Amino acid sequence: MDQMTTRGGVDFLQLDARAAPQRDLTGWLTGALRTAIVDGRLGRGDRLPPTRTLAGELGISRGVVVEAYRRLAEEGVIAARTRAGTVVIGGPAGSDAIGAPGDADTGIPAIDNAPHDRARGFTGGTTAVHRSLLPHAEAGVEIDLSPGLPDLSSFPRAAWLRHERRVLTEAGARELGYVDPQGTAALREQLAHRLTRVRGVRASPADIVVVNGVAQALSIIAILLGRDGRTRMAVEDLGSVGAREHLRAWGIAPVPVAVDRSGMRTDRLGAADVDSVLLTPAHQFPMGAVLAADRREDVLRWARSGGLVIEDDYDAEMRYDRAPVGALQGLAHEAVIHVGSVSKALAPALRLGWIVAPKALRDRLVDLKFSLDIGSPRLAQLVLASMLASGDYDGHLRRLRSRHLRRRDVMVRALRAALPDADVFGIQAGLHVVVTFPNLDPGADDEIARRCAAAGVRVHPLSMHRCTPGAAGLVIGYAANGPTRLEAGVAAIGCAMAAGGIASRPGPADRPGPADRPGPADRRGAEPIGAPESAGL
Amino acid sequence: MDQMTTRGGVDFLQLDARAAPQRDLTGWLTGALRTAIVDGRLGRGDRLPPTRTLAGELGISRGVVVEAYRRLAEEGVIAARTRAGTVVIGGPAGSDAIGAPGDADTGIPAIDNAPHDRARGFTGGTTAVHRSLLPHAEAGVEIDLSPGLPDLSSFPRAAWLRHERRVLTEAGARELGYVDPQGTAALREQLAHRLTRVRGVRASPADIVVVNGVAQALSIIAILLGRDGRTRMAVEDLGSVGAREHLRAWGIAPVPVAVDRSGMRTDRLGAADVDSVLLTPAHQFPMGAVLAADRREDVLRWARSGGLVIEDDYDAEMRYDRAPVGALQGLAHEAVIHVGSVSKALAPALRLGWIVAPKALRDRLVDLKFSLDIGSPRLAQLVLASMLASGDYDGHLRRLRSRHLRRRDVMVRALRAALPDADVFGIQAGLHVVVTFPNLDPGADDEIARRCAAAGVRVHPLSMHRCTPGAAGLVIGYAANGPTRLEAGVAAIGCAMAAGGIASRPGPADRPGPADRPGPADRRGAEPIGAPESAGL
Repeated sequence: MDQMTTRGGVDFLQLDARAAPQRDLTGWLTGALRTAIVDGRLGRGDRLPPTRTLAGELGISRGVVVEAYRRLAEEGVIAARTRAGTVVIGGPAGSDAIGAPGDADTGIPAIDNAPHDRARGFTGGTTAVHRSLLPHAEAGVEIDLSPGLPDLSSFPRAAWLRHERRVLTEAGARELGYVDPQGTAALREQLAHRLTRVRGVRASPADIVVVNGVAQALSIIAILLGRDGRTRMAVEDLGSVGAREHLRAWGIAPVPVAVDRSGMRTDRLGAADVDSVLLTPAHQFPMGAVLAADRREDVLRWARSGGLVIEDDYDAEMRYDRAPVGALQGLAHEAVIHVGSVSKALAPALRLGWIVAPKALRDRLVDLKFSLDIGSPRLAQLVLASMLASGDYDGHLRRLRSRHLRRRDVMVRALRAALPDADVFGIQAGLHVVVTFPNLDPGADDEIARRCAAAGVRVHPLSMHRCTPGAAGLVIGYAANGPTRLEAGVAAIGCAMAAGGIASRPGPADRPGPADRPGPADRRGAEPIGAPESAGL
Repeated sequence: MDQMTTRGGVDFLQLDARAAPQRDLTGWLTGALRTAIVDGRLGRGDRLPPTRTLAGELGISRGVVVEAYRRLAEEGVIAARTRAGTVVIGGPAGSDAIGAPGDADTGIPAIDNAPHDRARGFTGGTTAVHRSLLPHAEAGVEIDLSPGLPDLSSFPRAAWLRHERRVLTEAGARELGYVDPQGTAALREQLAHRLTRVRGVRASPADIVVVNGVAQALSIIAILLGRDGRTRMAVEDLGSVGAREHLRAWGIAPVPVAVDRSGMRTDRLGAADVDSVLLTPAHQFPMGAVLAADRREDVLRWARSGGLVIEDDYDAEMRYDRAPVGALQGLAHEAVIHVGSVSKALAPALRLGWIVAPKALRDRLVDLKFSLDIGSPRLAQLVLASMLASGDYDGHLRRLRSRHLRRRDVMVRALRAALPDADVFGIQAGLHVVVTFPNLDPGADDEIARRCAAAGVRVHPLSMHRCTPGAAGLVIGYAANGPTRLEAGVAAIGCAMAAGGIASRPGPADRPGPADRPGPADRRGAEPIGAPESAGL
C-alpha cells in the first residue's frame, strides 16, 4: 500500500496549492519536497505519490511534478524503483545516500553538494594555466594533469544560458546600473541559505561579500591585515605555493607550519608567532587530510585568544567516501573568515566567489572591495542566484561529482599499473591525487616533472608545494581529463621516470593490480594517510 | 480605429501561443513585445491591444499581460494614455541619427561610437547608486538624475544573449579554465583594432590589459605609482569627486589644477609639483570642455620630461555636434595610460574596461592585475569581442546615441522652462548637463540638492565636484530616464528651488523659450562655455 495515503495524501508537503507562485512552479515544488525530506516529514524509504496523483491534488500540470522529481533524483535525494515507485533515498546526515554518519555538530544534510575553490586552485594551478594561454608557451604539453581544474566539459552551458535569458528578461534597468559592492542581494541570500544548510556556516546575507574568486578574497584580506600591521600568517607545509605567492604580493609573510596525517600541527601555532592562519580544514591541500577534531579545538582556542582564521573550504563536498565535516566558521563565526568560489563547481573563468566575514571586519572588507573595482559584475551573480534557487546547481554538482569519481577510479588503476611502488594519497576527495616515491631522494620530483613535461604531460612536483624538503612526489589532477587521456598521461609519466633511470620496481604481491577496480573498502585500504610510512610527509 | 486590427490582431508579435513556455510566461511575453518594438513591427505611437484582448488571443491569463505591460512601461518603452490606451513611446533610433562629418585628422567616421566610462561615472555616480541599492536608503528618491548612467533600458539584451550562446557553443573547455591576467586575446585584438581606428589610439593587442572597469584601472595604476613613491597626481578642478576619493584610497594625493573654458590649466602643471595627471581631454568632466590644442601640447611637453598622463577617454564619442578629437595617447603612447570601459555604452553592471599601457609599465600592470584577482571573468570578454567583431556593438552605439540626443533635447527644453536664469553647460556631448546659478551664493547648491532629494529627485551639487569654491550649480544626468521623467524631474527641481525661496527670475527676452527646440545652430548659441560669464568657473 502506498505510504503516502497513510500520510494523508500530500499533506506531508504542507503545501497550499493556492499559494503556488505564478512563476517557477517547478522550483517551488522541488523546494517543498526537498524541505519535507530535510525536515524528516519524508523519511528514507518513503514513497512519493505518483506524479499524476500529486499533480491532481495540487492542481498543477503533471509536467511540473515530473520535472521536480527529475531534479531531486539528480540530486540523489529520491530514486525511481521499478516496483516501489519513486522512493526517498537521501535525507539529513545519518540517513543519506552516501551512507556516512552525519556531523552531529552541524547536522549537514549529506544530500547536498556545495562548490569550493581553493588557493592552490587559483594560483598554484593558475600560474601554469596562465602560461599555457600565452602563445607558444608550453607548446609541448599535450595532457595537462596539473591539479585544480574540474571537468570543464560538463559545464552546464544550456542551463547557464537559460538562466541568463531569464535574468536579462526580468532585470529592470537598475539591475544593469552600478553594483552593490557587497554583492547582489539575491545571490547573497542564496549563498547564505546554502552555506548554512550545507556547510554549517553561520551566515546571513549581510555577512557575505561577493568577490572575483578566492584570489580576490585573499587579496582583500591580505590588504586589510597589512594595513593593521598583522603581516604574519601561518600556512600549511605542505600547502599551496600559489596562496603563499599571493599573500607575499600584498606584504603578508607566510609562516610554514608542518602538516601531518591529521592536518596542520596546530599545537605549533602559538610558537609560530603569527597573527592569522590560512587553513584547508575539510580537505588539506595537497595531501587530503581532514583536520582532526582535537586540532580544530586547538585552532579555535588559539583564535579566541585573538588569532584570525582564514578557512579555505575549497572542495569540502567533492568527497567520495562520506559527508564532509562542517565548516570551522560555524563554531566561531567571529574569529573565522570563510572563503569559497564556484571555480571548482562551475568554471574558474567565471571568477565568482565569496567571503563570509566576521561582523567586526565586514564593513572594511566591503570598503576595500569598493575601492578595488566598485563591485563584481552583476549578470553572473544573478545567473548563479537563479541556478541556486532553481535546483539546477545541485543537479549539476551531483553529475559532476559522479564524473569526477569515475575519473578518480581510472587514475588510481592507471597509477597502480604505471607506478606500482608509489604511495597514493588523498583519493577520497577532491580533484587530484598525490603520489610519493619513498625510494627516491627528496627533490627528485622536480626532475621527474621536467621529464614529464618534455614527454607532453604537465604535473606538479610535490616539492613545489613544500616549504621544507621531504619525500619526492607528484600532484596529479584527474578531474579535467577523460579516461583515455588520463591513462595515456599516467603511462607517459611511468615511461618518463623509467627513461630517466628512475625505475618503477614491481609492486608487492599484496598490492591490488591494475585490473582490480577499487571498491569502497579498498579505497580506504589503498590510502596510506595514517599509515606509518606517511608520517612526517 | 485600433491600429492593432490593421496589423491583424496580435500577429505583429509573431507568437505561437502553443510555443508558450511552462515557466515564466511573463518573461516570454515581455521579451516578445520588446523584440517587436526593437524590430519595428511596433512603431512609436502604435497602440498595444487591450490586455484582455491579447490574453484572449494568446490563451494566457490576463495577469501575465498586465505584468508584461507594467515592465515595459517601467523601461520607458510603452506608456498608458488615458484616451489612446497603451502606446509605444520607446524604440530604436529612427532617421535622426547624426551624420557629422568625419574628423580629417583622425579619420574617425562620425557614425562610429566607442564606449567610455569615467572616474566620476563609477564613483561620483556609484556612491549614490550604491547607497540606493541598500535597503531603506534613499527611499524618497523617485527620479535619479545623477550623472554617469546611460539609457540602460536599451541594453541589447537579445544581442548579448545571441553572442553569449555563440561563445558558449564554440568555447572549448580551456576557455572555461583559468584566465589570462592580461585579458582574453580575442577581446584585446578587437579593442586594439577599434581604439586605433576610432580614437587614434596607438595600440596592439599586447598593449592592452582588460580590467573590471575604469575603477579597477585607476586602482591598479594608483597601487603601481604608490609603490614607486609617485604619490602626487594632478586632477581637474572642477573634476570627479569619485576619482579623487578612489585615488586617496590607494595612497595617491590628488592635487587640484584649475579648469577653464579650454580644460585644465596645463600651464600650471609644472608648478603643481606632481608625478602624474588624470585628464579627461575629449570631454572634461563635469563642464564638458574639449582640451584646447595648445594645452594638449603643454601636457605632452610636460609628460615627455618625465610626467605620466592618465587619459580617461570616457565618453569621447558620445558627441552630438561633431566627431571627437583624437586621444592624447596617440601622440605620446609611452607617456600616456589610456583607460576606458563599456559602462556607458552597454552597462556599468558588466564591470568591463581596459588599460592601454605604455610598454615600460605593461608587465607590472599585468602582474598587479594577476595579484588582485587572477584576471577578469572570461565569458563577458568573449561576448564583447563577438559583438565588436559582428558590428552589433556599433549598431547599438548608434541607436544609443540617438536616444541620448533626444533625451538631451528634452532636458534642455525643460531646463529653459523651469530654470530660465540658469546657465547651461556641456550639452554637445555626454550624458549630463551642468547648470550654474550666477545669482546664487557659492555653495548654495548643496542646499538645492538636498531640497531636490526631499522632493524625490537626485542630482549632484556642482560643489560636490569642486576642490575650490565657485559658482553654485547642479550636475544633471539625462541619459538614464525617459522624456516624461526628465520633464517631471526638472520641474520638481524648479519647484524645490522656488519653495526654498531660491526664486527663478524670468529669463531675458532673447533667450529661447521652452517651446523652442534647439537646432544645431542655437545648440552652440545656447552654450555659455567660452562666453565671458563662464570664465573662472
